[in-house]
Amino acid sequence: MVEETVTIMNEVIHQQHRLRIMAALERAAASLDFAILKLVCGATDGNLGAHIRTLQEAGYVEVTKEAVGGRTRTWVELTSAGRRAFREHVSFLEEIVGTQRH
Amino acid sequence: MVEETVTIMNEVIHQQHRLRIMAALERAAASLDFAILKLVCGATDGNLGAHIRTLQEAGYVEVTKEAVGGRTRTWVELTSAGRRAFREHVSFLEEIVGTQRH
Repeated sequence: MVEETVTIMNEVIHQQHRLRIMAALERAAASLDFAILKLVCGATDGNLGAHIRTLQEAGYVEVTKEAVGGRTRTWVELTSAGRRAFREHVSFLEEIVGTQRH
Repeated sequence: MVEETVTIMNEVIHQQHRLRIMAALERAAASLDFAILKLVCGATDGNLGAHIRTLQEAGYVEVTKEAVGGRTRTWVELTSAGRRAFREHVSFLEEIVGTQRH
């Protein structure tokens, strides 16, 4: 089967908004809040929420809510599985397009 | 509008099979035939045909058919717009995930 000759890409991470979310979280090496992630990935609230849920369901991010002065702040952070999956995906992209991490 | 703060990715190229097709064509710097591209991207005939049509409609590849001993061989080659778009997309990915081309 030709289909078995190449590794199938991680589509959870490859999707453009989720790729940006994961990259921002990995670079930050810390939790980022919803407002920052919205800027990073240029998504609407609903869209960002859906992408974060997809990443959460895959076990790649952890979400923490914090009440600050009557408002709820949402923090998102990479899990170790998420960090591993992101790095694997980056290596895979490097292999395909011929780039290398700094 | 938050949506306008980030550049939208080229989804024609970002899709995993098309990314592999474009990368293979750029590396080869020559036409590749359908059979090679099938191996490169691990797609079925129908699937590969559809991806090549999408790339053709975007003006990124040119398709040439050649009759060889009663069979038709299909050659695919990057256009200069395709090469430019692929390189732009790679720079964009580098920027997001922090990789650099060799």
